[in-house]
Amino acid sequence: MTYCVAMNLADGLVFVSDSRTNAGIDHIATFRKLFTFGVPGERIIVLQTAGNLATSQSVINLLKQRLDDPNQPNLQSVPTIYDATALVAETIREVVDRDRAPLAGNTDLTCSLLVGGQVAGNPPELYSIYPQGNFIQATPDTPFLQLGESKYGKPILDRNLHFDTPLEEALRCALVSFDSTVRSNLSVGLPLDLLVYHKDSLILPMGYRVEEDDEYYSDIRKRWAAGLQELLTALPAPPAGYNV
Amino acid sequence: MTYCVAMNLADGLVFVSDSRTNAGIDHIATFRKLFTFGVPGERIIVLQTAGNLATSQSVINLLKQRLDDPNQPNLQSVPTIYDATALVAETIREVVDRDRAPLAGNTDLTCSLLVGGQVAGNPPELYSIYPQGNFIQATPDTPFLQLGESKYGKPILDRNLHFDTPLEEALRCALVSFDSTVRSNLSVGLPLDLLVYHKDSLILPMGYRVEEDDEYYSDIRKRWAAGLQELLTALPAPPAGYNV
Repeated sequence: MTYCVAMNLADGLVFVSDSRTNAGIDHIATFRKLFTFGVPGERIIVLQTAGNLATSQSVINLLKQRLDDPNQPNLQSVPTIYDATALVAETIREVVDRDRAPLAGNTDLTCSLLVGGQVAGNPPELYSIYPQGNFIQATPDTPFLQLGESKYGKPILDRNLHFDTPLEEALRCALVSFDSTVRSNLSVGLPLDLLVYHKDSLILPMGYRVEEDDEYYSDIRKRWAAGLQELLTALPAPPAGYNV
Repeated sequence: MTYCVAMNLADGLVFVSDSRTNAGIDHIATFRKLFTFGVPGERIIVLQTAGNLATSQSVINLLKQRLDDPNQPNLQSVPTIYDATALVAETIREVVDRDRAPLAGNTDLTCSLLVGGQVAGNPPELYSIYPQGNFIQATPDTPFLQLGESKYGKPILDRNLHFDTPLEEALRCALVSFDSTVRSNLSVGLPLDLLVYHKDSLILPMGYRVEEDDEYYSDIRKRWAAGLQELLTALPAPPAGYNV
């Protein structure tokens, strides 16, 4: 399984992905699920993947190979992030069509992707492509999108993430969301890949990989666990009517 | 959908159920999903239901009707909570067999139940019956069991609930788990039915129904939301290496 979160906020974009893939519980491996494209000063595009690994890797490979082909629309030539998303969706269909017959049988070849970025002259945009190939866009009302094992880490985002949340705080919120998911679901695991993009900078950020022994992530996890326990202990006792 | 939690702790048992049922998103109704059986001083048995409402209601009705029949094993005659659970599972099979042919077609008639309680002379026990009819038992290592929309509210239980958690605090933990679920998933809704049983009391507790305007529940929700926001804001900022 997988867990990915992306946010389109007032100040920019935040992306965090885990890196665990599995087929059953004994074929576990680490694969990067966060990919970047771009032309400094002109555009940045970030992709996050979930679903069939063969399909998502083929999609990324084809998108990369075609960057050098001026005769095809590619992620460096499409005019908007919306068009980039449509191109990615089209490439998923192409790969699934190719790999489906005659060998795949009932194997689920579909994958889901988050596509976010900014093209000069336009605001940042963020989309989620469904396994069916259509896609939805994040808006100020719903500024985050998730892929994969999304339920464990959704409450903290529903409660505490808003369009106006500063990028640093949004990243902390995402890391807490990941910690909750990793603790409750074996199929989501470290390292995490993260990337924070400041609106209108049009510079592809370096990003960062959070490994198991990362000091800051460990610190946040400990503080969060201790803080929750304090918070729970400090809640008032139920009134007599509760019959406890 | 449904969300139910039950806990078997050092000091006793805690049960909380929501009461929303739905078929699609426009057939929404309130049905109690927590049922009690018992003989004061001798046994208490609590059932929580999820899944097909027709099946779970039939199961409860048959279990109730048979209490008066001395010729059949029933929830007042079986010697242990383990046997009570096996009897409930058998009754589920009976109802599904009856209702399946010839009308039901592909309708999923299965239901899941949590069965918890205590019989005099034995410690409290708690079981979860799968839709397939087999069942597992809560243990000190894993002292809680959930039914239905379990993922949103699982992280707080994984983190903060232990076998030695006092009953009052365990109930608060369950209410926070419900709040997280209700906020993130439309198919789980108030009122909540709750019941706290003190080990060896062998008295069927009154329980309590938490309605939308319940003061204590509202207070807990507000404190929890405010506390989480404070906790998040107080987390240290990411170090320079994170490239935020």
